[in-house]
Amino acid sequence: MKVSEIGERKLIEILLNLLSKDPEELFGYDDVSGRVLLGELIFSLKTDTFVASTDLLPGTPWKSVGRKIVVMNISDFAAKGITPLAGLISLCLKGDMELRDVKEIYKGINETAKEYKVPIWGGDTNECSDLVITGAFAGIGLKSKLVFRSGAKPGDLIYSTGEFGLTSAAFKILLGKREVEDKKLRKKILKSVYEPKAKLKEGLTLTDKRLVNASIDCSDGLAASLNELARQSRVNILVEKIPVAKEAKKYFETQNLDPEKEALYQGGEEYELILTIPPEKIEEAKSNIEKTGSKLFYIGKVKKGRGVYLIRNGEKEVIEDRGWQHFLKWKRKFNVPSKT
Amino acid sequence: MKVSEIGERKLIEILLNLLSKDPEELFGYDDVSGRVLLGELIFSLKTDTFVASTDLLPGTPWKSVGRKIVVMNISDFAAKGITPLAGLISLCLKGDMELRDVKEIYKGINETAKEYKVPIWGGDTNECSDLVITGAFAGIGLKSKLVFRSGAKPGDLIYSTGEFGLTSAAFKILLGKREVEDKKLRKKILKSVYEPKAKLKEGLTLTDKRLVNASIDCSDGLAASLNELARQSRVNILVEKIPVAKEAKKYFETQNLDPEKEALYQGGEEYELILTIPPEKIEEAKSNIEKTGSKLFYIGKVKKGRGVYLIRNGEKEVIEDRGWQHFLKWKRKFNVPSKT
Repeated sequence: MKVSEIGERKLIEILLNLLSKDPEELFGYDDVSGRVLLGELIFSLKTDTFVASTDLLPGTPWKSVGRKIVVMNISDFAAKGITPLAGLISLCLKGDMELRDVKEIYKGINETAKEYKVPIWGGDTNECSDLVITGAFAGIGLKSKLVFRSGAKPGDLIYSTGEFGLTSAAFKILLGKREVEDKKLRKKILKSVYEPKAKLKEGLTLTDKRLVNASIDCSDGLAASLNELARQSRVNILVEKIPVAKEAKKYFETQNLDPEKEALYQGGEEYELILTIPPEKIEEAKSNIEKTGSKLFYIGKVKKGRGVYLIRNGEKEVIEDRGWQHFLKWKRKFNVPSKT
Repeated sequence: MKVSEIGERKLIEILLNLLSKDPEELFGYDDVSGRVLLGELIFSLKTDTFVASTDLLPGTPWKSVGRKIVVMNISDFAAKGITPLAGLISLCLKGDMELRDVKEIYKGINETAKEYKVPIWGGDTNECSDLVITGAFAGIGLKSKLVFRSGAKPGDLIYSTGEFGLTSAAFKILLGKREVEDKKLRKKILKSVYEPKAKLKEGLTLTDKRLVNASIDCSDGLAASLNELARQSRVNILVEKIPVAKEAKKYFETQNLDPEKEALYQGGEEYELILTIPPEKIEEAKSNIEKTGSKLFYIGKVKKGRGVYLIRNGEKEVIEDRGWQHFLKWKRKFNVPSKT
């Protein structure tokens, strides 16, 4: 049987079953791993990879590729309350790649690493028939301040650190060839994929003050991330509002597409955090997030039960667990049922 | 300018210059990075990548690929006196790869990780036009017990944790098509590349007891590793004996090749440690290494001065700084001047 016949989630499940469990490991099936090192001090490890043949969006400047590698590796730390400590980069490339392009990637890596105050210590280089860049990052935290995907409690309110829809629009423009005439709008939309931001300060501030019960970064898409949060916390999520960026809304309306559905299912690679916060801590969370220069956007409520639902015009509909999986057809990239 | 025009060492130099230095980082230009975390406790990070299109030797069982990924990632820790704590695996593969082959790789990873008591916590999976497997490993150590490549002192004696030449012979058989008729001999030789071993216990035992002044793992080849040790320590190395495995010797003699030269220049991917030990600590080092089930093999002496020399039949000749570099022609794999 070929890997493409089973899809990424099933593959991961099979491979994880082949690895002996470490009883010390804290996060289980997650994008970050970690354990207690000494007393309260936890140590965490994270790897994430960029592959040009599947991940390089048309028109991406090389410097943006470097930016993305850092952002995608530290975003998950932000969600957990883990401070990234350092990173290494493993670079695999073709011998005929232009040196100046490789240098641009590393300038992007370095600038972004400085922005988030995470030194890049080095790494390794390899010859390869694809361009593959892997980040290996380590972080530290305090055990009592860690936030898990499984921590959401009925009664919590759900917020995000930003709005959605811009990456969905960018994918439509770059991959779906649904162009937009408004140059300024186009630029703003593409910025979401060319200049992604990790909400590190936001995540660390809120977790440090113990204001969050559960959180997840949205890089797998909004619908998939909400479902993951609900599943891991064994709760029901009621989405009352999907904060869609106004430029995304404008774009989708001119395309006769439903902005909320597009934001839910057709996005991903957004590094916003979804946070569940007990009602009595909302005001403190809001005032703290403002100090970081950001804002919290209301999404909905955590209830007893299971599943994720959207309330729209008085109707309740299921938010399906769909997101991007590797190893299934490219054209299905943003529309793959996750339960394989 | 293309990357292939400058070679790997020059590329690494250029890329490292683009990364801001972290004054906390302890190892500098090395295969392992690290910093003090708290008091004496140091924390270390390492990444190393296997790329099938350049690193997969003909006839390698998939399980061996898994083994190799773990060994190559923890071997450098062994040389430094750092205990590996955990690892992640980033897997990039083609959708048409057979699932059973991927499972074999992970069985190899898991078995080897258990052998060295390093849990593998997970990682990520990606679609790619090559098979690329990156290890991201973390380790811990005590600052006062770390051993650097730069620590060799005139008067030290140089030992290795094993013999050389078997991987050189294996490369000749598998890539140079210089076959050997003796089936048993062939099997023993190929075992060196199909079942590599990291000298973790050996390295950790000796460094824990502060018996070693400097060490390096030999994965880049014996000549290149000795030169790196001499350069970083700013000393002269006098090689009096090259411990060549008897099977390698037998093979090279039937091929009319010089076993010592082959072991020096045509090998690599040997994970033996080269250690420099003060004379007064040799007996203690030997008795400790025997407790791990291994042996120390005498190589030579550290002297004042620079460079690496071989004393043979009363003659002194330069041991050149040659080893494998990516991004230069494949046929030159084992014969590339390192000073680019």
